[in-house]
Amino acid sequence: MINRTNGRWAVSALATLLLLPALLVAQDVLPSWNNTAAKKAIVDFVAKVTDENSPDFVPVADRIATFDNDGTLWTEHPMYTQMAFAIDRVKALAPTHPEWKDQQPFKAVLDNDLQALSFTGQKGLVDLVLASHTDITTTDFEAVVKEWFATHRHPRFQQPYTQCTFKPMVELLEYLRANGFKTFIVSGGGIEFMRPITLGCYGIPSDQVVGSTTKTKFEMKEGGPVLMRLPEIDFIDDHDGKPVGINRFIGKRPIASFGNSGGDREMLEWTSAGEGLSLKMLVFHDDAKREYAYGPANGMPDTKFGNFPQDLMEEAEKKGWVVISMKDDWKQIFTFEK
Amino acid sequence: MINRTNGRWAVSALATLLLLPALLVAQDVLPSWNNTAAKKAIVDFVAKVTDENSPDFVPVADRIATFDNDGTLWTEHPMYTQMAFAIDRVKALAPTHPEWKDQQPFKAVLDNDLQALSFTGQKGLVDLVLASHTDITTTDFEAVVKEWFATHRHPRFQQPYTQCTFKPMVELLEYLRANGFKTFIVSGGGIEFMRPITLGCYGIPSDQVVGSTTKTKFEMKEGGPVLMRLPEIDFIDDHDGKPVGINRFIGKRPIASFGNSGGDREMLEWTSAGEGLSLKMLVFHDDAKREYAYGPANGMPDTKFGNFPQDLMEEAEKKGWVVISMKDDWKQIFTFEK
Ligand SMILES: [Ca+2]
Ligand SMILES: [Ca+2]
Repeated sequence: MINRTNGRWAVSALATLLLLPALLVAQDVLPSWNNTAAKKAIVDFVAKVTDENSPDFVPVADRIATFDNDGTLWTEHPMYTQMAFAIDRVKALAPTHPEWKDQQPFKAVLDNDLQALSFTGQKGLVDLVLASHTDITTTDFEAVVKEWFATHRHPRFQQPYTQCTFKPMVELLEYLRANGFKTFIVSGGGIEFMRPITLGCYGIPSDQVVGSTTKTKFEMKEGGPVLMRLPEIDFIDDHDGKPVGINRFIGKRPIASFGNSGGDREMLEWTSAGEGLSLKMLVFHDDAKREYAYGPANGMPDTKFGNFPQDLMEEAEKKGWVVISMKDDWKQIFTFEK
Repeated sequence: MINRTNGRWAVSALATLLLLPALLVAQDVLPSWNNTAAKKAIVDFVAKVTDENSPDFVPVADRIATFDNDGTLWTEHPMYTQMAFAIDRVKALAPTHPEWKDQQPFKAVLDNDLQALSFTGQKGLVDLVLASHTDITTTDFEAVVKEWFATHRHPRFQQPYTQCTFKPMVELLEYLRANGFKTFIVSGGGIEFMRPITLGCYGIPSDQVVGSTTKTKFEMKEGGPVLMRLPEIDFIDDHDGKPVGINRFIGKRPIASFGNSGGDREMLEWTSAGEGLSLKMLVFHDDAKREYAYGPANGMPDTKFGNFPQDLMEEAEKKGWVVISMKDDWKQIFTFEK
């Protein structure tokens, strides 16, 4: 019960609690970011949309921020984490699929021939995911994903994949939430591959994860109802699929969005097209020493995962989208560094 | 800043804030509910899953509650609210569709012939919704929906449709949220018809609304990108579609779910099949005086909207799903009463 004689202090404490986000801003926010233009763009944007006296003020209910995952929140090299999972799972399932020995893309996986695998292209990747992620209940699949994350490590960093998240981006997620934002993942990755780890990695609950999906089917079994994952694509959450996914799952236009490749272009354009102030940022991987360097924009190597083309760099410059240089803008990339 | 000398009171006030949900329970919770078995089932369930010392304790992150909308949270007679909207919109669009004069289900709508309309069945309803909800951007459609809600009233109650929500269910939503639950709508209704009003009616933001959807397409126009609503069903969130929709949008199994018709059966079965304690409830419309009475369960009239069959009543009894009698369990149904 509130003690009446101490009511004044109770009110004072309540006021302090409500002011906490503002106090955090005044202190050293985003500690893993250098004091460069990228950090300034974030802090200035947040100050404007949270200031009730600013013409750019946005009510809490409309403070929606969307984040790509691979290459934006965690490492996507030497290959997408989900691809590493799919490869391991194809190997595990191979004894029950003797026909895979002579079928691409499975033959390439079983022969450990990553070059042949790359020749199977986008279709090969989709076939791999469909074959390795389906004909299983949603409950069992979740257990398989959790087990894989618990037992596998990134080949270069020798850390669990769940540790290969970018510390500055996790700080950014927390900073936005402390300022009343609701944070969402909007990724081309499979939604049921991400959901088991997003709360732990990013503080993002399963219902705030938008991603690619396969169809599922409700079936009544002996032991009760199950949802079976079917080998059929339901939705690809990439390129123009990102605004479609945002509309379907979130139902509001973001005022801030963050990506790292050509697949995020339409999400950033969709964010820009809203009324009022918005923030659009792209993570650029230019730090081969601490992480990876790839483009092909700005003469960086052209690689298979997370393509950042030169015309995206030009669109960013023209439209005032902020490009984050991992090398220059981030003081620290991983929690495990040093 | 927390004043150090008053730190004790600050802590005391903080403790009071954290205890608020518990205090609310101790006072008269769910004031529009009579003190019958239905209310007791809710309060007992919430007490168990929120008590850390109970074997039935559920962490906050897993306190997911799902609610059907039509007939569960608001009135669905004399017809679904969305059908009233679709009829009005077909009439408004008719001048640009001269062919509708001779085509069902449009002819029935334009002739105000509800009986002929009912003969077009489920397909007629889908055709009506597709024709009246598409070939329009998502932004423009939202404006049309808002305008309609602002200018139309329920034919019997002569209140805005947004006032025809059930007060006891709105109290239940608030009570669950005060106890750490995240509340979701899982409705057969169109997701973009509900989203403009769910925050105001129920305190539920757009991203916590699961419903039926049409496909949308991202298009780059002169003035910027738009999402066009296409005349093509993407997903029907009813019957076995409800567990599918829950898995797709929420990614967790609910521990409490609430419905009112045969279309909610699979959602309640899916909720039941989880580990641990769960609460399943069905609103039964047996109050023709204050609202409507229909079944056909328990000898109530058999009507077109919100069918509650006898075998659902028997399944509920057998499985311990709680049937809410609007007549006996609810002290007050609408806020506007009296
Ligand atoms: Ca990416
Ligand atoms: Ca219903």
